[in-house]
Amino acid sequence: MNLLLLEEQDFTAPQRVRLSGRRLQHMLEIQQVAVGDYLRVGEIGGLMGEGEVVALDAQQAELQVTLTQPPPAKLPLTLLLAMPRPKMFRRILQHCATLGVAEIVLLNSYRVEKSFWQTPFLQPAVIRENLLLGLEQARDTVLPRVRIEKRFKPFVEDHLPALITGTTALVAHPGDFPCCPRALTGRVTLAIGPEGGWIPYEVDKLSAAGFQPVQLGERILRVETAVTALISRLF
Amino acid sequence: MNLLLLEEQDFTAPQRVRLSGRRLQHMLEIQQVAVGDYLRVGEIGGLMGEGEVVALDAQQAELQVTLTQPPPAKLPLTLLLAMPRPKMFRRILQHCATLGVAEIVLLNSYRVEKSFWQTPFLQPAVIRENLLLGLEQARDTVLPRVRIEKRFKPFVEDHLPALITGTTALVAHPGDFPCCPRALTGRVTLAIGPEGGWIPYEVDKLSAAGFQPVQLGERILRVETAVTALISRLF
Repeated sequence: MNLLLLEEQDFTAPQRVRLSGRRLQHMLEIQQVAVGDYLRVGEIGGLMGEGEVVALDAQQAELQVTLTQPPPAKLPLTLLLAMPRPKMFRRILQHCATLGVAEIVLLNSYRVEKSFWQTPFLQPAVIRENLLLGLEQARDTVLPRVRIEKRFKPFVEDHLPALITGTTALVAHPGDFPCCPRALTGRVTLAIGPEGGWIPYEVDKLSAAGFQPVQLGERILRVETAVTALISRLF
Repeated sequence: MNLLLLEEQDFTAPQRVRLSGRRLQHMLEIQQVAVGDYLRVGEIGGLMGEGEVVALDAQQAELQVTLTQPPPAKLPLTLLLAMPRPKMFRRILQHCATLGVAEIVLLNSYRVEKSFWQTPFLQPAVIRENLLLGLEQARDTVLPRVRIEKRFKPFVEDHLPALITGTTALVAHPGDFPCCPRALTGRVTLAIGPEGGWIPYEVDKLSAAGFQPVQLGERILRVETAVTALISRLF
């Protein structure tokens, strides 16, 4: 935890917060803080700064906080992601939040197993929890937006063309395509398929909607690795 | 498993292999192969090609293999990595093998906990097993070399200057340094610190040995994410 994130309801006064639960435990057991110590803090969706521990016991901590610093800029990136296997999904949410992805659209695809959509990790509270872990790591306060689209065809046909207007729209797919570009500065929409890849029909549909297929070389990456590798190359 | 990797001892004749254990289980349970099916295969350290399943039962499989295709080129990269937390270490080995790292040097650092060096994951057989998982994913046959250096100072002072000769030597470190370069074509030595980073003394020693500190922006990445992000940007 490189940043202690504060919820609205933690505030007992404009510059005063009271914490318990996971964050208190982390302060006591990992950071081993004491009264008088300063911690990096940030208000979720807001500014960052520091907090002085003014009271501390086994039940709660009180901090006096000063928030003056804006969070780092988000990447101008919407990630269109075929719904990953649940265990990997949690880690990908964390990676995306850490790397600064602005928006994630979870999409169905032929090779997404139906059971993936049943995972409790898709509950809004669990998505939020994993995104917060990623923000704590990166020192950011702004949650990526997450949108769930369980029907590929109507989403791609009816909504995607408007969504990608004004962006460079790329679909990552192995094959005889141009290499993924580097160091883009404008807005990007990036589509990443499931393990095993998009099926040709899906690549065709995405191409028809305005996406350019791009590839990363002959090595086949796990989705989790591909997400980080593609984002790092694009920005 | 995108590639079935063959050990020397699997061969019963120049083009014939007999398999059991994990690979047989994977063929039966995940790939659900039958006699007559063709699989992508590769000999560890050698060529890739395809194998026809010519006999199959619950105990063993026999394949007739034709190996003609060279594995993908390795990245011209030596990764100097502060020994990571064991659980993350396994995944990093897999990522490195998948991404095509040629050589990994595991190095001590002030912020590496002593207990990390006690992990059974450092046993040569376990390192090899995790590298093979990464190669299977990428479709590669050549194991990265792994070297263990438990003493920072003598290694950096006495061996590193020779090791980095003819390479671009970079140490990833947050701070007021140039951005990590992109799309290098020559040989690179890249040093990545532990969670919490190198200490200033270590950055000074690496700089004195010929490393240029470079940074990736203000977001703090987990080591696992940093490995993939840096490699993807460099090549």
